[in-house]
Parts: sequence; C-alpha cells; structure tokens
Amino acid sequence: MKKYTDIHDIENIPKIIQEAIALKANPFQYEHLGKHKTLVMLFFNSSLRTRLSTEKAAKNLGMDVMILDINNAWNLEFKDGTIMNLDSAEHIKEAAQVISQYTDVIAVRAFPSLKNKEEDESEYILNNFTKYASVPIINMESATAHPLQALTDAITISELTNKKKPKVVLSWAPHPKALPHAVANSFIKMMQSIDVDFSITHPEGYALDPNITKNTPISYDQEEALKDADFVYVKNWSSYDNYGQVLDQNPDWMITQEKIGNATCMHCLPVRRNMVIEDAVLDSDNSAVIQQAGNRTFAAQVVLKKILENL
Amino acid sequence: MKKYTDIHDIENIPKIIQEAIALKANPFQYEHLGKHKTLVMLFFNSSLRTRLSTEKAAKNLGMDVMILDINNAWNLEFKDGTIMNLDSAEHIKEAAQVISQYTDVIAVRAFPSLKNKEEDESEYILNNFTKYASVPIINMESATAHPLQALTDAITISELTNKKKPKVVLSWAPHPKALPHAVANSFIKMMQSIDVDFSITHPEGYALDPNITKNTPISYDQEEALKDADFVYVKNWSSYDNYGQVLDQNPDWMITQEKIGNATCMHCLPVRRNMVIEDAVLDSDNSAVIQQAGNRTFAAQVVLKKILENL
Amino acid sequence: MKKYTDIHDIENIPKIIQEAIALKANPFQYEHLGKHKTLVMLFFNSSLRTRLSTEKAAKNLGMDVMILDINNAWNLEFKDGTIMNLDSAEHIKEAAQVISQYTDVIAVRAFPSLKNKEEDESEYILNNFTKYASVPIINMESATAHPLQALTDAITISELTNKKKPKVVLSWAPHPKALPHAVANSFIKMMQSIDVDFSITHPEGYALDPNITKNTPISYDQEEALKDADFVYVKNWSSYDNYGQVLDQNPDWMITQEKIGNATCMHCLPVRRNMVIEDAVLDSDNSAVIQQAGNRTFAAQVVLKKILENL
Repeated sequence: MKKYTDIHDIENIPKIIQEAIALKANPFQYEHLGKHKTLVMLFFNSSLRTRLSTEKAAKNLGMDVMILDINNAWNLEFKDGTIMNLDSAEHIKEAAQVISQYTDVIAVRAFPSLKNKEEDESEYILNNFTKYASVPIINMESATAHPLQALTDAITISELTNKKKPKVVLSWAPHPKALPHAVANSFIKMMQSIDVDFSITHPEGYALDPNITKNTPISYDQEEALKDADFVYVKNWSSYDNYGQVLDQNPDWMITQEKIGNATCMHCLPVRRNMVIEDAVLDSDNSAVIQQAGNRTFAAQVVLKKILENL
Repeated sequence: MKKYTDIHDIENIPKIIQEAIALKANPFQYEHLGKHKTLVMLFFNSSLRTRLSTEKAAKNLGMDVMILDINNAWNLEFKDGTIMNLDSAEHIKEAAQVISQYTDVIAVRAFPSLKNKEEDESEYILNNFTKYASVPIINMESATAHPLQALTDAITISELTNKKKPKVVLSWAPHPKALPHAVANSFIKMMQSIDVDFSITHPEGYALDPNITKNTPISYDQEEALKDADFVYVKNWSSYDNYGQVLDQNPDWMITQEKIGNATCMHCLPVRRNMVIEDAVLDSDNSAVIQQAGNRTFAAQVVLKKILENL
Repeated sequence: MKKYTDIHDIENIPKIIQEAIALKANPFQYEHLGKHKTLVMLFFNSSLRTRLSTEKAAKNLGMDVMILDINNAWNLEFKDGTIMNLDSAEHIKEAAQVISQYTDVIAVRAFPSLKNKEEDESEYILNNFTKYASVPIINMESATAHPLQALTDAITISELTNKKKPKVVLSWAPHPKALPHAVANSFIKMMQSIDVDFSITHPEGYALDPNITKNTPISYDQEEALKDADFVYVKNWSSYDNYGQVLDQNPDWMITQEKIGNATCMHCLPVRRNMVIEDAVLDSDNSAVIQQAGNRTFAAQVVLKKILENL
C-alpha cells in the first residue's frame, strides 16, 4: 500500500479484514517491521480515539511516534503563488517536504470547514500533503473521508456476523451541531465494496453526495428501513445540499431500543447519549460501539503494516 | 495492586517505601515488566512534575506512554441519563471503556472546582474512570487526594531520618490563590499510617475535613507547633468550611529560617518563594523539596510496578 | 561537550561537520549510546522543524524523549528575591533542578520579547536553565542564538561545495512581522569560524549587534553584494538599533531568481513565499532549503552524541 487516504487504496478488502483480525489476536507479531521507522501524526483538529489508537497501532509494530498539533506551530499556506504577507508562516510545499525527512509515514487529520463545499471537496489539506510529501500519507479523517473508521466498521461487522449477506442500514440521527459527512461517506463506500445488503435512511433534505451514494437504496421512512436489519449504523451529518446546515434536530429520528430491536447498533463515537442514541441501546448487549472503537487499533495497524511492507 | 487512587490502596507502606528506594538505586532493573504494556496519562489540568516523573517512571519499567491533554479533545459528560445536547461530546462511559482498549493502565489528573464541595468530594471524574475503565487507574491528583505525592513524601522522610518516631508537622502557609486540599489530605493520611509523631498547625478558619484529620492534634499556634520538629511540611490550602475561599494571606504564617530552625523543610512544589517559604529556607541544606520532587519518579515507578505485577 | 547553547561550545567545527555527515549516512549506528538516557524538550514557543528533528535525532540515538510545552504548565519566575504573589507559580531554581532529576539532557526553546533589548540579551531563560540545571542544556533557539540551525547550515554548505573558500552572503529580506536576530547571529558566528569568504548585506537601519558582526564586511547594496556569490543565506530580522522595530518591508529586497543567479539559496524556514524569497527560487534546483531542514536532524544528533559521550 502506497498511501491510505481512501478505502479504495485497499486492494483486497476481505483479505485485509482477516489480517486485521489476526493482528488483534497477536498484536506484537510484526514489531520488527517498524524498527527504526517513524510515524508523524499531524492534527489540525481534536482527537481522542484516532490519536490513541493510531499511536498504539504504530507502537505495536515497533515504530516510533511523533505527534504535532499543528495549531501549536503556525498556520500553513495552501494556495500557490500567494504573497505570504498575512497570517500563514509556512507553505505546505516546504512543510510537507520537510516533515517527510523526519519520518517514514505521515498521518493527517484535517476536518472540513462545512462553509465552502468546493474547498472542502478539494481536500486541499490532505491532497497537498499527498502531493508534496515524499512519504506515504494516512488519512486520520479528512474533509470528506474517514477510511480508518470505515475499515474498523468492516472488521467489526465481519467479527459479529456469520451471515453471507447481512442487512446493514445507515441511519441519520439528530445532533445539535453541524457535523461533517466524512464518516458516512467512507462507511457507504465500504458497504458498497463488501457483500452486504446495504441501504440508507435519512430525513428529506439530508441526502449525501450522489457521487458517493450512487445506487444505494435510500428511504425517508426510518421504521421501514430498519426492519429486519442485522446492523444499524447510526450517524448524524449536516445537510449536503444546504451545505453544512442543521435543518432540524428532529428527535423522532433518535435511535431507540424499540426501533433497533435485535439489530446490532454501531456508531463511530463520540456519541451524544439520548440525543443520537438512547441510553437503553448503548448500555445493551446489542451495542457494538466499544468493540468498534477497540478495532480502530487494528485497522490502523493493518494499514501501517501494509505501508511498512511496501517502503 | 489493582489501582492507586488513595494511599490506602497500598497494602504495606514500609515495604513499598523500601521497594521505591531500591528502584531509585537501580531504576532499570524491572524494565522487562513493562514490555508491550502501555500507560495512558490523561490530563484535565496542568502538570510539570507529575507529568514528567510519571512518564519517566513508566519508561524506566519499559512501558510505552501515551499522553492526552483532554482539553485538546472535547468535554466529557459525567452525569447519567443526560440528554447530551449541550457542550459535552462524549460520555465518560464510552470514553473510559474506549481508552481502556488502547492501554494497560490509565493515570488521571483532575483537580476540584473548589466551588461545589459536594461535587468535588464525589470525585466524579476519578471515580467514573475507576467505575467504567477496564484497566487499573492511577490518581495523578484528584479533587481530594494526591497519593503519589504522599508516597513520595513518605519515601523522602524515610531517606532522611534514622529516628524511630520523628516529629512531623504539617503547617499551613499563605498563598495568593485558592488551592485544593488534595496534597494536605493525602499527606495527613500517610502520616497517620506510618510511625511518626504527627501534628497540624493552621490559622483559625483553615480546618481541613475532620473525617481526614480525625484525632491528629491541631494547633493554631504555629511557633509552638513547630518546636522541636524534625520535618516541617509546608502547604497552603483554601478554607474547607468556607469552601474554596482564601480567608486571608497572613504573611506571619510564611515559613522562615528562624521558624524552622534545624528541621527539614518539605513542600510538594511548585512553591511561591517569599510568600509560602522564604528564600533562606529553600536555598539552605535543610530544604528537601528537590529531593522530594526527585522521588516522585520512584513513587510512580513502585506503584506502576505493583500494578504491572498484578495484571 | 558539556552543553550546546552557542556555536562556540563546539571544539572542532570541521570535525563535527564530518561526524554529522557520517551520522546522516548511518543514523542508527550509535543507538546504544542513548539507552536508558532521556531528553526533555521544553518549549516556551512554537516549533515544527526543531521539535520534530530534535526528537528524531534523540530517538536515532536510542534516547527516550519527553516533551513539555511550558505554557501548558504555568508561568516560571526568573528574578531572584521576588515575593511570588502574582502570576508566576514556580521559580526557575526549583523547575530546573527538578526537571534535571527526570532526564539526562534538557533542550530549551525561548524566544526574545523583542521589546526589552537588555532583558533579551541577558538570555535570562536559557542562562537560568544552564545555571540551575544539573544536566547539559541544548539551545533550541534562544533570544539571541540558534546554534543548531547554524550547525545545520555549515553541514549543508559543506555538502554542497568543493570550493576551498566559497563566497557566502547573508542577505536581509523583507517580512511582515518583527523577527528575532537569533538565526542571523548564529549564522554569522558560524561563517566567521569556517573557511568562507563571508559578507552581509542589509538596508540601512538593519545593522546587527556589532559585537557579533565584528569585522565582517557589510554592504547596503544588495545587488553588488550578491555578485558571484556561491551561497546566499536569506533571512529577515527586525532592527537592532530601533530594537524590535520593522522599519520598512521594502519589497526590493526580496530574493528573486534574477538576483540569485547560479548561487545556492539558503533559508532556515519557515519562509514566506513571494515576500522573502520568490517562488521561482524556492522551486528551483538552486534552493537548498529542504536539504537544510533535513540536516537539522543530524546537527541535533551530533550534538546529542557529543553530550552523551561526555555524560
């Protein structure tokens, strides 16, 4: 693997899932691979799970880890040809080339503004790192994608079902703040790539990028959509058409025990209890959210392993 | 040891002191113990000594260390049943369970508000980590306790005296800001648990929690109290009765060379010079404050060692 | 080496340059040297290159690294005899002695205020660490010096020329903000110490400390000065006489392809493109700025190696 910025950087998804599950059973088996190798983790935004799980994954492989909260350094410039006489102190051209000299892999977290769709969709932060860095780039959640989360989700579904083609439903749920589309986007791409019966349900006005949803069935009737589901993946996102807007926080769309029945409840976390999902679900045996978060380590680890093997 | 949130988690104090002193003489003797083990250090508050000494202690034992300033992530919710539609993005239930999957031990620093006595005394941050985490918890100073400091203090007294029952006095001293009771509380508990002649002196209005001071003699006459002391442990704390208030900053209570005579002066640091303790004391051979700070490494290391041996 | 706060702490510059180049060819050759040794990096100011390269250097030598952004702890007091009843919570006397007990080497970054020349020139932060710490101090850029950068620059010049006495010109260039003199100062000292034909060019009003420039030729005519240069080292600094002032941002002094001709362009980074140096230079083969930044690792590593060998 030469980079991991999108789930389509994975050549063989079923195989990588099995490798991740094998790493979980034996996390230190490949620690020789990372000897004398360094991962730099760059954060433009907050992180809890991604930060700790990716650092742990790298250390399981014997790598050194260096973490930089970019906001503790200075503003980077991403536009070409600018006269840099304002707030930005360093151009991404220099930053990416320089950091590449101190490390073997760079992982980047850079959220969208949710204000300028075109700018967010250009993925200018992630893509400029990919363009100018001389080492592989890992996406720790960008403006439009969170492929480490999607891989975790696929691993977790694989662990939890024996069905050939389980029914998986992605359901929108209410949230007080405007959230990005990245988790939903990557989950959709992943579900379209593995053998599941996949559909999406959300209120009108919350349609995602049609270039991502493609032919996936979409319903505005949550109850109907969740019927006989094996897995319900819960996620809020802000409007894509009215870009970055919270149209309403309709509490009727909260995921309850009654709605979910015997299905397994999934969420990428952090989750706002009793707003997105009610306590009764999260505290039940049907919740897989902790297991999902635990699998973040092995999603990151299998990606790092593939990258190290290719260095 | 299954956790270290209070000094009473130590089974045998004299034995653990001797083990800490042995680690100091040979810090890397047990570095095999921490192989493939990780310590996550979570800071809700600032730290210098605790952060560096605990990280060093873990590395002396061969552990990996991951540090997260929680304020760089997001607000956690600690109340059950809340509709999380405000500032808190993640419930402690998820956070503690999730972080537990990335580490073998979690150390937490969470100071009191000093505004709500009942809330502070509930130790809701520390106790919720203990309740929901699936790995051992170490207290790096909580609302009401600082057991790593108290262990350090006991180690330092043990190093510095041959007396069977040295006279130890805890003296309040003035400070411009409202400080917590944690250091005083844990020091008192520790002195009550080892073989010393222990008393407390403070101005009227500065009585500590009677459930902690118990039968320990308390004097309002600092000069009388310090007479013939072998160790004077200096510490400011805000009022407990008028919770979190600075009643006065009476400079007469500052610790001076004249007051302390030949006694050894102890303080947990940071110390405000010429406000809490005068320069002449801190710069004299009677000051043990640097030695105390140095012993923080071995207090943390012996605690981590006991926890690792029990994993 | 007992410390590295100034380039004159190096005994034999040509020899250390050769050692650094040898480390670059074989970065892990001395990793046994740092076993059980710790570097504490203390930042009073932002850092990208210095932070990552110094951490990498230490890890290449097998050291453990602990990083503390001092602003995440509390204000330190540097004045003797103060009654500490205001903002400072801990005196440098305690801080430096305490931190020394947790580490084998301390690296410090502490920029000038550019408001009080006398205070800045006293180097009170760096010098108080040197005075009170019991372990070697490394300067990661202080008020008046950046010796790790100057060593990097000498290494880079050595790599890029076969000439016995290349012509090196330090040229001031415009910048929107008031910048320190540290990089220029240390570069000048370094150029005065190795076998180069060295001169300085800057607009009137931008004369540096005469105790540093000494007999180095200075020209106000940039075009004349750059003629036949082998290396042009570009750097902005604020006025030294009108201390810390930006007198003008004269765009005529920006470094262009036309001005630089076939000379190699050097800069310590971060660089503001099209303000300090134009794109055409930075994107050309004549730019050495990325190579310079890469050499930061080996400048730090050779310094750490010398210090470790002397512990």
